[in-house]
Amino acid sequence: MKLYDRELSGNAYKIRLFFALLNQKYETVSVNSAAGEQRQPWFLKINPRGQIPVLEAEGRTIWDSTAILVYLARRFGGEKWLPLDAEGLAEVMQWLAMAQNEILYGLARARAIVLFSRKADLAEAQAGGHNALKILEQHLQQHDWLALGRPTIADIACYPYVALAEQGKIPLDPYPAVLSWMKRIQSLPGFVGMPGLRMM
Amino acid sequence: MKLYDRELSGNAYKIRLFFALLNQKYETVSVNSAAGEQRQPWFLKINPRGQIPVLEAEGRTIWDSTAILVYLARRFGGEKWLPLDAEGLAEVMQWLAMAQNEILYGLARARAIVLFSRKADLAEAQAGGHNALKILEQHLQQHDWLALGRPTIADIACYPYVALAEQGKIPLDPYPAVLSWMKRIQSLPGFVGMPGLRMM
Repeated sequence: MKLYDRELSGNAYKIRLFFALLNQKYETVSVNSAAGEQRQPWFLKINPRGQIPVLEAEGRTIWDSTAILVYLARRFGGEKWLPLDAEGLAEVMQWLAMAQNEILYGLARARAIVLFSRKADLAEAQAGGHNALKILEQHLQQHDWLALGRPTIADIACYPYVALAEQGKIPLDPYPAVLSWMKRIQSLPGFVGMPGLRMM
Repeated sequence: MKLYDRELSGNAYKIRLFFALLNQKYETVSVNSAAGEQRQPWFLKINPRGQIPVLEAEGRTIWDSTAILVYLARRFGGEKWLPLDAEGLAEVMQWLAMAQNEILYGLARARAIVLFSRKADLAEAQAGGHNALKILEQHLQQHDWLALGRPTIADIACYPYVALAEQGKIPLDPYPAVLSWMKRIQSLPGFVGMPGLRMM
């Protein structure tokens, strides 16, 4: 399997982290998105959305970090990381949606503005980020994990941009239940980090 | 089953459309989000994200339109609308991600700015919307459906804000393969519409 990757991408890190937790080997191809390489014709042929990560596996190309997490969970994790019954699958899916919505357009965007000079409204992104953290804090005050009382790809999908939030000048100290959850994730067997993560 | 609904919400329409295609009965509770009702404490108890749609089913509360589509597909559709093998599930998931990302933050946002006076950058949203339509057009020039060569919840998730795009002043005529796909969706047995859809 081959991962089109960038070290500082939180979306690509989701996949590297999940590969590590699954104890699966893979190759990486580094894509220099700071230089716009993901908008070059060769890459758009691989992913018309022009985004990393992309996974090549068994002759298929899978774009989108959430779709790749789902693929790896089904292929290597049985139902441990992603259950298939209606209720369980929907419960995980709710948090995958949060990862693609409030977390991506709040926490990840604020970080991109500060770190990569992305042109967007920092105050609006930070407000969206705090909204995401409040929802997570409220849930994690009463649950150890986001879904099903155990680690699932819901946690893997939401964790990176939460743990990178302070790079977008969004302090995490007001969210103690989120910090405890981050520590639980960091304690999972096989955990790997990336630059900029707040470690507990 | 009870759907917290709003007639003009494309996200809520995804669920009404899928219920109709599944030929399943449900009740609705209308939430007046124009008046901010989805931010009232009673609704935030149901969905901490403060968004419609929400589904109540079998004593559970499922928020997020994508999660609800997944739930209904598993509960009433066997594997017809959502397959469970790694490759098939990931293929559908890619387009669910598009629905939550480029389509929601491009097409749906442009419509919300024009129709509901939402404060955001119209030109940026329209550019994002055209980007989504280009990706869809390129794919649909070679495929009848978004995934697996048959109708799936990928189509249901992407269709509403595409067919409502012109309310955000994003013309659809430059995208003939998208228009043909819209016509195929409108021809599905049980199809129901909503106000503002471009009908083919």
